Amino acid sequence: MASSGTKLWGGRFVGDTDPIMEKFNASITYDRRLWAADVRGSQAYAKALQTAGLVTGDEMKRLLGGLDTVYEEWSSGHFQIKAGDEDVHTANERRLKELIGEVAGKLHTGRSRNDQVVTDMRLWLRDAINTLKGNSLQLISTMVDRAAAEIDILFPGYTHMQRAQPIRWSHWILSHAVALRRDVEKLDETLRRVNVLPLGSGAIAGNPLAIDRELLRKVEFLFWASMCLTHLSKMAEDLILYSTKEFSFIQLSDAYSTGSSLMPQKKNADSLELIRSKAGRVFGRCAGFLMILKGLPSTYNKDLQEDKEAMFDTYDTVDAVLQVATGVVSTLQVNRIAMEAALSPDMLATDLAYYLVRKGVWSSFLSMNHVRYTCSHTHIQKTCPNADAFSVCVHKIFAFSVEQYSAPGGTARSSINAQIENMRAWLKTHKQ
Amino acid sequence: MASSGTKLWGGRFVGDTDPIMEKFNASITYDRRLWAADVRGSQAYAKALQTAGLVTGDEMKRLLGGLDTVYEEWSSGHFQIKAGDEDVHTANERRLKELIGEVAGKLHTGRSRNDQVVTDMRLWLRDAINTLKGNSLQLISTMVDRAAAEIDILFPGYTHMQRAQPIRWSHWILSHAVALRRDVEKLDETLRRVNVLPLGSGAIAGNPLAIDRELLRKVEFLFWASMCLTHLSKMAEDLILYSTKEFSFIQLSDAYSTGSSLMPQKKNADSLELIRSKAGRVFGRCAGFLMILKGLPSTYNKDLQEDKEAMFDTYDTVDAVLQVATGVVSTLQVNRIAMEAALSPDMLATDLAYYLVRKGVWSSFLSMNHVRYTCSHTHIQKTCPNADAFSVCVHKIFAFSVEQYSAPGGTARSSINAQIENMRAWLKTHKQ
Amino acid sequence: MASSGTKLWGGRFVGDTDPIMEKFNASITYDRRLWAADVRGSQAYAKALQTAGLVTGDEMKRLLGGLDTVYEEWSSGHFQIKAGDEDVHTANERRLKELIGEVAGKLHTGRSRNDQVVTDMRLWLRDAINTLKGNSLQLISTMVDRAAAEIDILFPGYTHMQRAQPIRWSHWILSHAVALRRDVEKLDETLRRVNVLPLGSGAIAGNPLAIDRELLRKVEFLFWASMCLTHLSKMAEDLILYSTKEFSFIQLSDAYSTGSSLMPQKKNADSLELIRSKAGRVFGRCAGFLMILKGLPSTYNKDLQEDKEAMFDTYDTVDAVLQVATGVVSTLQVNRIAMEAALSPDMLATDLAYYLVRKGVWSSFLSMNHVRYTCSHTHIQKTCPNADAFSVCVHKIFAFSVEQYSAPGGTARSSINAQIENMRAWLKTHKQ
Amino acid sequence: MASSGTKLWGGRFVGDTDPIMEKFNASITYDRRLWAADVRGSQAYAKALQTAGLVTGDEMKRLLGGLDTVYEEWSSGHFQIKAGDEDVHTANERRLKELIGEVAGKLHTGRSRNDQVVTDMRLWLRDAINTLKGNSLQLISTMVDRAAAEIDILFPGYTHMQRAQPIRWSHWILSHAVALRRDVEKLDETLRRVNVLPLGSGAIAGNPLAIDRELLRKVEFLFWASMCLTHLSKMAEDLILYSTKEFSFIQLSDAYSTGSSLMPQKKNADSLELIRSKAGRVFGRCAGFLMILKGLPSTYNKDLQEDKEAMFDTYDTVDAVLQVATGVVSTLQVNRIAMEAALSPDMLATDLAYYLVRKGVWSSFLSMNHVRYTCSHTHIQKTCPNADAFSVCVHKIFAFSVEQYSAPGGTARSSINAQIENMRAWLKTHKQ
Repeated sequence: MASSGTKLWGGRFVGDTDPIMEKFNASITYDRRLWAADVRGSQAYAKALQTAGLVTGDEMKRLLGGLDTVYEEWSSGHFQIKAGDEDVHTANERRLKELIGEVAGKLHTGRSRNDQVVTDMRLWLRDAINTLKGNSLQLISTMVDRAAAEIDILFPGYTHMQRAQPIRWSHWILSHAVALRRDVEKLDETLRRVNVLPLGSGAIAGNPLAIDRELLRKVEFLFWASMCLTHLSKMAEDLILYSTKEFSFIQLSDAYSTGSSLMPQKKNADSLELIRSKAGRVFGRCAGFLMILKGLPSTYNKDLQEDKEAMFDTYDTVDAVLQVATGVVSTLQVNRIAMEAALSPDMLATDLAYYLVRKGVWSSFLSMNHVRYTCSHTHIQKTCPNADAFSVCVHKIFAFSVEQYSAPGGTARSSINAQIENMRAWLKTHKQ
Repeated sequence: MASSGTKLWGGRFVGDTDPIMEKFNASITYDRRLWAADVRGSQAYAKALQTAGLVTGDEMKRLLGGLDTVYEEWSSGHFQIKAGDEDVHTANERRLKELIGEVAGKLHTGRSRNDQVVTDMRLWLRDAINTLKGNSLQLISTMVDRAAAEIDILFPGYTHMQRAQPIRWSHWILSHAVALRRDVEKLDETLRRVNVLPLGSGAIAGNPLAIDRELLRKVEFLFWASMCLTHLSKMAEDLILYSTKEFSFIQLSDAYSTGSSLMPQKKNADSLELIRSKAGRVFGRCAGFLMILKGLPSTYNKDLQEDKEAMFDTYDTVDAVLQVATGVVSTLQVNRIAMEAALSPDMLATDLAYYLVRKGVWSSFLSMNHVRYTCSHTHIQKTCPNADAFSVCVHKIFAFSVEQYSAPGGTARSSINAQIENMRAWLKTHKQ
Repeated sequence: MASSGTKLWGGRFVGDTDPIMEKFNASITYDRRLWAADVRGSQAYAKALQTAGLVTGDEMKRLLGGLDTVYEEWSSGHFQIKAGDEDVHTANERRLKELIGEVAGKLHTGRSRNDQVVTDMRLWLRDAINTLKGNSLQLISTMVDRAAAEIDILFPGYTHMQRAQPIRWSHWILSHAVALRRDVEKLDETLRRVNVLPLGSGAIAGNPLAIDRELLRKVEFLFWASMCLTHLSKMAEDLILYSTKEFSFIQLSDAYSTGSSLMPQKKNADSLELIRSKAGRVFGRCAGFLMILKGLPSTYNKDLQEDKEAMFDTYDTVDAVLQVATGVVSTLQVNRIAMEAALSPDMLATDLAYYLVRKGVWSSFLSMNHVRYTCSHTHIQKTCPNADAFSVCVHKIFAFSVEQYSAPGGTARSSINAQIENMRAWLKTHKQ
Repeated sequence: MASSGTKLWGGRFVGDTDPIMEKFNASITYDRRLWAADVRGSQAYAKALQTAGLVTGDEMKRLLGGLDTVYEEWSSGHFQIKAGDEDVHTANERRLKELIGEVAGKLHTGRSRNDQVVTDMRLWLRDAINTLKGNSLQLISTMVDRAAAEIDILFPGYTHMQRAQPIRWSHWILSHAVALRRDVEKLDETLRRVNVLPLGSGAIAGNPLAIDRELLRKVEFLFWASMCLTHLSKMAEDLILYSTKEFSFIQLSDAYSTGSSLMPQKKNADSLELIRSKAGRVFGRCAGFLMILKGLPSTYNKDLQEDKEAMFDTYDTVDAVLQVATGVVSTLQVNRIAMEAALSPDMLATDLAYYLVRKGVWSSFLSMNHVRYTCSHTHIQKTCPNADAFSVCVHKIFAFSVEQYSAPGGTARSSINAQIENMRAWLKTHKQ
């Protein structure tokens, strides 16, 4: 039988190393972004080793000093990645040894590569979640401010994309803000779990089985992102519809849309389309990682190396989406005239029926047909003093209509204001 | 232009109704399982209407009585679904009207079909989560009992499916029990959210925008199930491996495996293979539903009708998986001899190295090669008094090895016992 | 160590059989639909056994006669499934034995259960593909007829949901018909592969490794369905938009939409929303099955039992979607006035610029601003003889605009007609 | 109402441009790899313009010369990407204008950005498919060579991961080679479709609706990759199992596995674990893109920009996987002794039963128990002349067993050889 590394059965020649395999195996191209977490983690570990009496005070100083230099090289953009640096941990260790010699090896004492990766990722994830939470809060805050400022604007609430009943524009905004708030609350739960140290992590020798418990958080994060972007994809879809020529309810700021020199009449809602698409991208990362996990034997298998790219790409995507969404919501212009023109009188039928029921004056002789007639254009026009006053009449009727629903979550001004206050109070408790 | 319902451009004839469309649209074939939640919900609503003065005391009694009859018909298997009963709500209403006449219509007052569906699903989901929680606790409890009883059995811990270091069989069991415990804790969080009434749900007229917030819980549940079954798929994979002829660590009870009349030597781990597969099935339901949501406009769209089959199938699957897994874990037999025979002496090298480091006797002259030799079969044999004592020696050495790790989560008996106590205390607080 | 089937470590009692495991394991609830394929397959096999001399002529007759009875029982709805009938094959065998005694066992000769399942599924899939192909062809044919009849109707082509350039309504229809045609062509490729017998399938003893090759077709089919319904989800999305009040381009027939007694102004496009959602459902089935396959060891594992429900549900879904889509397209009404009113003059700018380039009269002094002015409402109004003639003018200009693109796939009448002819010729070659 | 670009409702300030939006929108970081296709495509277009009389011969020369310079700058690594270069097309255009002035703008004549992207991607995809086809053929060829050389090695065929019946090692190899061959055949079908020009692509003005038809190919490619890597994940899983200590059937070359200084007994099959994981990664890309497409309105929407990263990453992944798999298969060592030792006598029972049936000597008195006894270790030992000869006996019996199946796809030497010949002939016809 041939010795290892010899070409046996055709195929390209393979010696003791295969450059394609090395590249396939290496993670330095993407895990290099963990450099700061890695250096800080090693510094903390050097101190722990000194406390445990496993390195001397002098050795600790040399380790810390060397690591400071490594940190500086990365932050100034001068760190040189060399052939053989398969991941950021190897790279940092190699560099540390160049700087301070054999003592660098003491950092290995009782710390497996796996422990190191877990610690670095935990630090990274904590920072990532905090950043995304901040971005989400800024978006919610922007939405709440806008809802407060534009509380008077009415437009149709849609179900099945058909006009259903009059609502306040603020109501629409808040319904999406509330969904985002739930997302922030779930993110907080994940953050709490990230901050809990794993069972046994204090042990000098790690626990090969603990890795499965660590995975949960990553998967939770990926799923959170899918859910959050799915919410935003729905908000984006609404806004894209509202910005069509046919709806004309809103107009995006130039910063978030694209015109065309050839078709000046067009203003494409590129920002919103990108936001909508990112739900798919991030779901793909989550789905791919779950598929990798399914049926995998316990503990570490190299398959799990896929976690990092999935996590990093998901984070970068959500980070950008939240900021762009904030920009879009912050700067879009509302076309109040078009919004209110879309309130057709026949939308009042439901309201009137509910109103009569509540007032107890609904009775068998009052058929829905009667109600419908009362709400018709013709009838309202008849009861209006003159043609000019008609649109004023209609507006008043709709304003009255939305005022009927004053329960929590309703469309009445008081109800909207209560929601705004509630959201502002909640935002205050989450200020970072 | 042709009038509606006329065959226009080829295609099969279509009148005012299309039987295929009616079947496509109907949900009665699967939402009938909500019958109990629907009847109970309507009874609660009838009482609320009376309290609000919208029905009289007599009307309420007639409504409640009629609904009692409907309930009985379902529970005795005598409820007749008729053509035109597109969902369980329509069916129950139709039947109620047959039983008590026009007063049945009063149940509509201020309650939209959508409100009704939301309430029914909430009741159903609460029950579903409680059942799955109970099943999970029983599985965990079985695992903990087994871990306690078999604490003396050692076998190799694997990483990359290669023997890595000696661990206790209990350690393996507990690592999966801990993952399940996290799943139960997450399920509890979802349950808490299901029990919170939605903003505005008290209002007689519902809020069309609230539907998006309701979706969150369903998606959370579907994702929870994917995550939980992914965990169990990993446990199943380990056990399938352990039950191969080559590993021979465990043997499933006949109730959970299949023999073959032709191949009597085979005992297929059908139960575990099915458990492993269900992670895929349930993920598919979750992925499908997320895809349905992505980019959908706000509020209700008929697309959302897909939620129920996804929820029901997911629940049924997880329910069965948890019970079958309990049966498997409860009855499998462990082959202690094979497990311990798999502990090869070379697995001790790591342990010895760590041990020497901790004792502070590691020094430059002590190379890993030296350590490896010390751990070799040859060397151990030399230091053993005689051949017969060899295997006893090896067992003692491994027993000593696992005892080194006494930090929380470690492999020492004390550490395992602490975990068992911790789990038992936790189980007690979750007794239902 | 406890004997198999005894309750060991808590958990519910488990004897030699566990009813939950039996239900978990059984497939009769869904594979019963293979009854016809199974009986026909067994009859063919009985004949093959006789030819091979493995059963006598008389035995063959008894087998065929018994199987005829089984067939009749199923088709008349009198077949009784009994406890222990874990799948349709067991059920049929059990019944055959009841009918003709021990000779029934001869059908086992040299035929594994696996061979039988593979054959039954192949027959089923062949029929399924043929039906779906027929449905697709009918939908395409309806679309082509409609495109031919309504070739004169113009409306805006959209990109980014913004009006881009005038096109024919027929052009929109054909673009979706062409996508479906590609789907049919791909389905034909799969059908061809289903009709090829697997390597070695002629052997009396099957090949356990061949199963992986069989899987390909199932996966191909599931993926085909995801792709096809993704196409139709895009068509449905367009039509849902077109049926909003704001667009008002089309109106669905009552058979395919739902009104509301409370909101008579609403006509919800339920059929289209369901079509849109089914892409998610079917994708979920495909994704779930792929996840099941990933990392599975070669040959048969019980995990693969999940194939059937995925296949059956996918088939039923696509079958209904195609028929409902045919009904929708066949009966929807087009609002030509609204469509043409949506052609705003500024949409002509691009056309004019291209036209001038082609005519070679574009020059440096001719700026886009100039072109835009020429296409403006103001300018067209000036050059029109009188106000009444304005809309006629605009229509003529747009009609001229679409006529410019006479290359294959273009918007000119001649180009559309060529496409229609091409589609009709293709449909003719696929008549079944 | 505020003018565009002003900070309105909190949120970070946003002027006319938002740098985060610009980065979000830009594709240059990944589409730069299309530079060669883009330059070549523009050169072809310049020639077409000259032929159509839209540019003069001199202008064409200046365009071609400028584009040559652009090409050289990219290939020598000197091309400078500047702020505002949002994609590779803009970058090349900007650079061309710097080099040759205003005449560069003529390349726009009658060519939309969309046309350009479609053409570039088509060229890229054609090359990508050809490369992957080449890689697949090399892997298949390696497998076939190995199957031919090691035809004498027997080992257990497994179902349910339990030993089922003796097969040739070559049989296992070929079963995976055949699956790959199907993948190549499907890739060829996609390639054929990529080479067909889209309807209407000859028109100077493109067809906004054609974009949906173009998507099909991309989706086909992504799905193909998911399917192909799912196949390879199953092969990898088998090999990972075979390389465990417990199976010990194979040993990977050092180039494709990782040792551990601490655990010298371990040799982790990193290459195979990475291959297994990539099925998840690539599926995630496919799933994400399908989710993006679902329910998207027809024609171009910015969401589609996600196609490129999905395509590029999928290509890079499959490219590496195929090469690494070739290296692994080419260099792994087979442990024939362990393989044959795993053939336990009881595996013969099935074979013997089938054999007797075929020979027509199976009769009622011959129960399976009798057959099983005949195949037992005890019985074989009795009939063997002496202990030494026992293993020779067993080998002979198994060799005889596999020889029974001589139908196509069977395990007999003649059958394997026929498959090898068939594969070699097929490979010859696909030489590129």
